[in-house]
Amino acid sequence: MIVAPELRRSSSGRMTGDFYTIATLGSHSALQILKGAHDEGFRTLAITNRKTERLYRSFAFVDEVIVIDEYADFMGLVPELEKRKLIIVPHGSFVAYLSLDEHKKMQIPYFGNKAVLDWEASRELQRQWLTRAGLNVPRQFKTGAEIDRPVIVKLYGAQGGKGYMFVRDSKDFEERAGLLTSKYILQEYILGVPLYIHYFYSPLTGQLEIMSMDRRYETNVDSLGRIPAAAQETMTIEPSYVVVGNQPVSLRESMLAEAYQMGENVVRVSKEICGPKGLFGAFCIETIITPDTQFYIMEISARIVAGTNPFIDGSPYSYLNYSEPMSTGRRIAREIKNALLTNSLDVVLDDSSLL
Amino acid sequence: MIVAPELRRSSSGRMTGDFYTIATLGSHSALQILKGAHDEGFRTLAITNRKTERLYRSFAFVDEVIVIDEYADFMGLVPELEKRKLIIVPHGSFVAYLSLDEHKKMQIPYFGNKAVLDWEASRELQRQWLTRAGLNVPRQFKTGAEIDRPVIVKLYGAQGGKGYMFVRDSKDFEERAGLLTSKYILQEYILGVPLYIHYFYSPLTGQLEIMSMDRRYETNVDSLGRIPAAAQETMTIEPSYVVVGNQPVSLRESMLAEAYQMGENVVRVSKEICGPKGLFGAFCIETIITPDTQFYIMEISARIVAGTNPFIDGSPYSYLNYSEPMSTGRRIAREIKNALLTNSLDVVLDDSSLL
Amino acid sequence: MIVAPELRRSSSGRMTGDFYTIATLGSHSALQILKGAHDEGFRTLAITNRKTERLYRSFAFVDEVIVIDEYADFMGLVPELEKRKLIIVPHGSFVAYLSLDEHKKMQIPYFGNKAVLDWEASRELQRQWLTRAGLNVPRQFKTGAEIDRPVIVKLYGAQGGKGYMFVRDSKDFEERAGLLTSKYILQEYILGVPLYIHYFYSPLTGQLEIMSMDRRYETNVDSLGRIPAAAQETMTIEPSYVVVGNQPVSLRESMLAEAYQMGENVVRVSKEICGPKGLFGAFCIETIITPDTQFYIMEISARIVAGTNPFIDGSPYSYLNYSEPMSTGRRIAREIKNALLTNSLDVVLDDSSLL
Repeated sequence: MIVAPELRRSSSGRMTGDFYTIATLGSHSALQILKGAHDEGFRTLAITNRKTERLYRSFAFVDEVIVIDEYADFMGLVPELEKRKLIIVPHGSFVAYLSLDEHKKMQIPYFGNKAVLDWEASRELQRQWLTRAGLNVPRQFKTGAEIDRPVIVKLYGAQGGKGYMFVRDSKDFEERAGLLTSKYILQEYILGVPLYIHYFYSPLTGQLEIMSMDRRYETNVDSLGRIPAAAQETMTIEPSYVVVGNQPVSLRESMLAEAYQMGENVVRVSKEICGPKGLFGAFCIETIITPDTQFYIMEISARIVAGTNPFIDGSPYSYLNYSEPMSTGRRIAREIKNALLTNSLDVVLDDSSLL
Repeated sequence: MIVAPELRRSSSGRMTGDFYTIATLGSHSALQILKGAHDEGFRTLAITNRKTERLYRSFAFVDEVIVIDEYADFMGLVPELEKRKLIIVPHGSFVAYLSLDEHKKMQIPYFGNKAVLDWEASRELQRQWLTRAGLNVPRQFKTGAEIDRPVIVKLYGAQGGKGYMFVRDSKDFEERAGLLTSKYILQEYILGVPLYIHYFYSPLTGQLEIMSMDRRYETNVDSLGRIPAAAQETMTIEPSYVVVGNQPVSLRESMLAEAYQMGENVVRVSKEICGPKGLFGAFCIETIITPDTQFYIMEISARIVAGTNPFIDGSPYSYLNYSEPMSTGRRIAREIKNALLTNSLDVVLDDSSLL
Repeated sequence: MIVAPELRRSSSGRMTGDFYTIATLGSHSALQILKGAHDEGFRTLAITNRKTERLYRSFAFVDEVIVIDEYADFMGLVPELEKRKLIIVPHGSFVAYLSLDEHKKMQIPYFGNKAVLDWEASRELQRQWLTRAGLNVPRQFKTGAEIDRPVIVKLYGAQGGKGYMFVRDSKDFEERAGLLTSKYILQEYILGVPLYIHYFYSPLTGQLEIMSMDRRYETNVDSLGRIPAAAQETMTIEPSYVVVGNQPVSLRESMLAEAYQMGENVVRVSKEICGPKGLFGAFCIETIITPDTQFYIMEISARIVAGTNPFIDGSPYSYLNYSEPMSTGRRIAREIKNALLTNSLDVVLDDSSLL
């Protein structure tokens, strides 16, 4: 529900001329979001805990820090934040700390469309979304008995690559299935190289941009290849996929049109399934590319991803459109600024936002 | 053959004051070439097909798009393009789509020296060139029986890493030789890390620059290391080297003087073998570096390579010379601009160019 | 000992108004140091040998080149350099070519604290330093018999990854121990991904900055994963860790506060162990990150590392603080400039510096 600005101003006692503050939780891609906000002329607020406070305070572009004991306590801050002229830019950790329900209840102006959260949170709905957009998804197995090739077992709600298990075959699965304490899916292990494509869709212009691309840096799998096969035999190696960093990659240009098309298809379908606003702002499609140069889509993230962090000072792709260092975080702030300049802030915020 | 400008202008009816258009085929490194051309003040033209049209039109720096059904139809456009004040900047895909013969027949002003094409297209001539320049090349085997170590079988005309086959030994080769339908070479498999060095040689100043460096991102070989050796045993893995991306690398500085020297040697020899102009503009030497810090040269590419794509917004090396984002694509446009400013356009164009 | 500027000027006959020259040896990270110095307004001097002279002369930001036969001859230049208004910025190769003793004897103004050299050169002292700073170090074994897991054997004085040996177990060690001709340590092989964190600590402001991060590009270990396990069996593979390049990485932001804290702890302890100045300027902590997102610290380098070379044109991290391309090399020059501007040059130089 969008309330007329006059109403808001009088009730909160804020001055008309105050600039908006862009706020987010101190983790994930917060530095990029706040630096970008600062560069676009906004005030910035980092909400940190005691361990991260010192880091975020060390940066001049962070105008204000609010410290909470645990990130999960964020909801306690909401009444205070709702009184301010402030816009939340959510990221993956923000979403991880709040429940779907808390997310929807919150009326702080919020960049993005919360309706997408339901489609993203469920692996089944996500798969429907991707399939309907004509994207290529890996095969899934319903039971261990069905497994006829290596698979990745993914626990529900697995975050940052934690909760993934590599399983060689049906027998291997039976032996280790007992370890699985929560719901999971069994996904075909696609043999190919991972590539994460970062998009930005502007609801103001209807234009899609490719912002950057990365590959994740995962421990321990990205270190295994450094050990000769013969030496691996003498070690007990359980592969794990915990994401601890990101590295820049550029895609072969002859495949770029398809990457662009995939992004457009995902946006188009989102407008059919998540209300008229659909998916907008930053999002990411996680792919694996096989030797026949086919994209397999593993997952979609419906907001800024940490894979954009190597590009705080710009990327080869964003440079094509901006000729200045344009991170995804800054792109978000630019969109909010453009919305303000065109008097259409509601277009870039979730409908729950109390302006 | 360079024709006096007065002649040209009258026959084509173009205005003297028109700016040059830089044109290329929409693939490979076209974005970088056209963005660079735009940044240096040229008009830009992308020749695309129906699938890539949308992508290239999405960029503001692309002034004009001409759509053809297939890139192989490019020759049909030549008469029209020859009438315009236009310079072609060729890249790897451009070369792949045109025959050597078509290349030479074309009289559109063309950045680079077509005489290099013959030396590049033949693996034997290329090897002669590299050896004469004092560069270290891997051993080659004439017959399968000679093979006494792992080799890479490379089909003639293999592009983008497709058409490579890893062979363990003589026996392995005999078993699979039947699959080889075209001519090939048998090249020693060098155990070391790949590094691709991107150079630019200015025929206007006689100065060589190192622009950037990359390593390729190849599917599936760059994903194999993520699978524990024990798990690989249960899978059927045929290594493939299809290039789907590129990642930035910087070279140990104590090896940089040698890298620079290699580039200079390659240019020097090219002037002896490909006519007085020799190799100029962008080129790339593909190396593998062994544990004794020795460069082995796999191949040379005589124009801009896709490995420069991670550096559309500049590279650590080009920054040393330019203090602004200087991609190889932009460097090419800068050279053409410098040629115009010094009234020596013919110096940076192939002699077939009808000015 | 800092001598009053009046004294110095008269004895050397230099003009008061001369600008300082920043000098270093032509290797390692010299390009970055000299480019950065140039960009901050200093004159620059590269000391090269005959093989590297041509490379360093090719750059416009190198104002002067002095050629010596061997880098080890550097001490012969000292009397001449001491007469000039010049500051040495040391790097890893500089340190490798000079003995500890020569280092201390030299009175050329020297960026950094030489007292740190003793703590860095000894693996035992380094370990004490790191442990005292609360950092997590890998287990060490005193004798081959103690080895109960894979280890890395590191020769004393090993440079650039040369002199490392991977050993599978106690038996493997006994078989190959005969090859070890110098002193060594036996360090637990940590299974995880390497990450090198580049810091800058300003003695003028007391503020620590994270400048950039890299992973090394090592031959041959970073190529092994590209060979299928089955094919490796037919090859004799001795893993080696020779560093020939560096690649950019960004760290998961939720781990960044800890990385920052580690840097602060290392600086704090250095003030206790290496005199009041402690460690300042550029330094690097070499880590391996395990699947439980724990940092293991392999080593500390007390000055600019070659891993900063991918960031000559800036890094995502330094952009947060500077909004312009700020390499570690340039950051050093900026610190020297700030020291001059605040009349506190002695604060950023070793106490041996004769000003």
